Amino acid sequence: EEVAKLLALKAKLSGEENASSQKFTLKTPKGTRDYNPQQMALRQGVLDKIVAVFKKHGAESIDTPVFELKEVLTGKYGEDSKLIYDLKDQGGEILSLRYDLTVPLARYLAMSKISSIKRYHIAKVYRRDNPAMTRGRYREFYQCDFDIAGTYDPMLPDAECVKIVVEILEALQVGDFVVKLNHRLLLDGMFEACGVPSDKFRSICSAVDKLDKSPWADVRKEMIEEKGLNDAAADLIGTYVQLSGGTDLVDKLLQDDRLKSVKSAVKGLEEMKLLLQYCKVLGVEKNVLFDLSLARGLDYYTGVIYECVLKSDAPVDSSGEQGTIGSVAGGGRYDNLVGMFDPKKKQVPCVGVSIGVERIFSLLEARQNAQGLKVRTTEIEVYVASAHKGLHEKRLKIISSLWDKGIKAEHSYKTNPKLLAQLQHCEENGIPLAIVLGDSELERGVVKLREVTTRKEDEVKLEDLADEIIRRLRS
Amino acid sequence: EEVAKLLALKAKLSGEENASSQKFTLKTPKGTRDYNPQQMALRQGVLDKIVAVFKKHGAESIDTPVFELKEVLTGKYGEDSKLIYDLKDQGGEILSLRYDLTVPLARYLAMSKISSIKRYHIAKVYRRDNPAMTRGRYREFYQCDFDIAGTYDPMLPDAECVKIVVEILEALQVGDFVVKLNHRLLLDGMFEACGVPSDKFRSICSAVDKLDKSPWADVRKEMIEEKGLNDAAADLIGTYVQLSGGTDLVDKLLQDDRLKSVKSAVKGLEEMKLLLQYCKVLGVEKNVLFDLSLARGLDYYTGVIYECVLKSDAPVDSSGEQGTIGSVAGGGRYDNLVGMFDPKKKQVPCVGVSIGVERIFSLLEARQNAQGLKVRTTEIEVYVASAHKGLHEKRLKIISSLWDKGIKAEHSYKTNPKLLAQLQHCEENGIPLAIVLGDSELERGVVKLREVTTRKEDEVKLEDLADEIIRRLRS
Repeated sequence: EEVAKLLALKAKLSGEENASSQKFTLKTPKGTRDYNPQQMALRQGVLDKIVAVFKKHGAESIDTPVFELKEVLTGKYGEDSKLIYDLKDQGGEILSLRYDLTVPLARYLAMSKISSIKRYHIAKVYRRDNPAMTRGRYREFYQCDFDIAGTYDPMLPDAECVKIVVEILEALQVGDFVVKLNHRLLLDGMFEACGVPSDKFRSICSAVDKLDKSPWADVRKEMIEEKGLNDAAADLIGTYVQLSGGTDLVDKLLQDDRLKSVKSAVKGLEEMKLLLQYCKVLGVEKNVLFDLSLARGLDYYTGVIYECVLKSDAPVDSSGEQGTIGSVAGGGRYDNLVGMFDPKKKQVPCVGVSIGVERIFSLLEARQNAQGLKVRTTEIEVYVASAHKGLHEKRLKIISSLWDKGIKAEHSYKTNPKLLAQLQHCEENGIPLAIVLGDSELERGVVKLREVTTRKEDEVKLEDLADEIIRRLRS
Repeated sequence: EEVAKLLALKAKLSGEENASSQKFTLKTPKGTRDYNPQQMALRQGVLDKIVAVFKKHGAESIDTPVFELKEVLTGKYGEDSKLIYDLKDQGGEILSLRYDLTVPLARYLAMSKISSIKRYHIAKVYRRDNPAMTRGRYREFYQCDFDIAGTYDPMLPDAECVKIVVEILEALQVGDFVVKLNHRLLLDGMFEACGVPSDKFRSICSAVDKLDKSPWADVRKEMIEEKGLNDAAADLIGTYVQLSGGTDLVDKLLQDDRLKSVKSAVKGLEEMKLLLQYCKVLGVEKNVLFDLSLARGLDYYTGVIYECVLKSDAPVDSSGEQGTIGSVAGGGRYDNLVGMFDPKKKQVPCVGVSIGVERIFSLLEARQNAQGLKVRTTEIEVYVASAHKGLHEKRLKIISSLWDKGIKAEHSYKTNPKLLAQLQHCEENGIPLAIVLGDSELERGVVKLREVTTRKEDEVKLEDLADEIIRRLRS
């Protein structure tokens, strides 16, 4: 018979599928993960708080594609370019996954001929880096970026970025933190003053960038052995990069014999002084630290650079990042990036910060688990239950009327569920109210409305049901 | 001098960047687009309404990576598999961008050993299809999926999916629409009854799927010439696929001589009858149409299938989709997909719908543009302005205190902006309130609080400022 043949074919086809499914491990790609409903609830809570701060500062939002023409990303990331994910050439354009949200922003501004915008962008970016998932380092991860583009007076947008980072980290209650500040012009000037040849500035800067993870001895070795710097220059750099402080340090460095004769160093220091002054006015002086060891790896920064670290982190040791969450925000000024995309080289100065939420998720998730907190993953207000068999169409009719009034309601997808199972579902899922349908009540035009925690039940007329539920939810 | 050498090097480097930037067109990849702030505001509004309906029905949310191991996607999409984006092999796993959110859900359920969940997932998916961007067809596009996984009684979850589509489209006010319903078992049974060999079911089904875009004559030709079906079978199919209706049609087909002897056809019809009955109880009978021409291309459906089209669309003509928005939602039951991933072949029956928001965005954007509506893209409540020079630090201090009280505020990033320019900014951006600082007022401990639309100004004491602003915003 035809049906039998059909079933046999189906079994065969599904057998083939099964065979192919056995060939691979059931997993997500390396360095990526799924978010389950609990993790999504946590993530949404964090992102909502961040967006609230961005909006408080008047940011608009934009979105760009997850991939860009490969050439858009080329030459923007220095040594990190090797971490870019490329798409396969399937005939057509050569594409890569975005590495950050900054280069796509610059491409967007040039393409749309926008000369000023204050925008946020929350989206995932992709890096073929060595994952360390327990510490929140993934190959696919969220960035929450806030940037101010436009030609403005010195340090006013730059200081607002610091304020925003402080507001966000305070809102997220992740504990004590410090926003480290430095300036690319000062770094370049300092390298020059120490006798670094100008063609080595970027590679020496990349080495300095590793000071948050490696001790000075290792960084010094990299400078000399890998980057070919002479011992004297490296040792001089060593004396500067251990300095950190506030306005006093800026003033001291402005008098430094080596630095005061290098124009870019002086300009960097003067801008730093103004930034610290504005930070004071904005009430975030206590949260910032001028730190000469802060370098940041990306090529495109041209002015102030930021990096925010949690103070509660375990101390850095020689084995690397073991046990630390690391940086939770970073950014800086990049005045030349938009011009790289503009056919007429028109520059749009930009400054921005990026919040590294994955590390914050890890931290908050660990805290939540330690406290044994259970987060509701749905917002159901009422469960519609049957007291006995044969009521599923009546349930459907009542729940439908609740949905139509905007009430968040669910019921069992079984025609004859057990009452106990239904009530247990309510208790386990923190649903505040339940309606219990029974023929004897329905005949009188009423249902039982039950408060799940107290188990108190009242009869409510069907025609008053939605209003009564809304009244109880509000109170 | 060192600085000069440095500047020369910088110019040279930036010259190289410029040279490379001139080699490519400044564009987003084919079939993709940026969202500007106006489009983001529209998009967020649409997504918020959709999420509200999903939450009203008790859905949790999950997220999965943008790419999957290539094998996860293999053998799931039939003829459409050629549209999958692959990543370049950079040493490591072979990856592809997700094609939909359904296969990743099935992979997630099998991997996490979840046997029941009601979840929504809003994320972008990727298809190397022929883009038609003015009609909202992109290579990168959002899907808003709602699915119910679990072993339940027939048609209860299936009917709720219809209810959800209706609630969403009504909430979005996109005009009249119809949710077309059909059943894969009925299609297969109908093909069998018409004499289609069972190994041709899927390919003939793909041909029927084109009936929404092509006239029957073209589809018949494809069946006979490309798929090798005989004329008689094709003509018989032609008599069925022109049928559509409600419960009456189901009853008529249950008496149909050819169909009533084919088990799968009878089962499909009986389930359709129950689904239509539940749709009636849920108050969405007027929105649905049982339509035998509905096929849906994807391989994995096993039961009910849905597709929602806007009635206001231009009529289908022989040139294809010209001028039409096409389908705005679709879905169906897929009972065997999770089992393909489970090492022990454990099945988790699923049913779900996917809202095609890009087409809805296009429609609403066109409507907005036609009406000349301007949407606010920020939520700024107060602008802090200087009446004259030299007040930028006082502005910073005041705006900082407003931010600390949660007030959405912005100011100029120029130290000495013109008052007129500041007030114009408020009017152009729909900012309701402005504070105007002036030395004479500040000496008396007050500032001017201005209602932007009426231009009415009152003096407010500095210490009362935040409270007064909050009071005015609430009223």
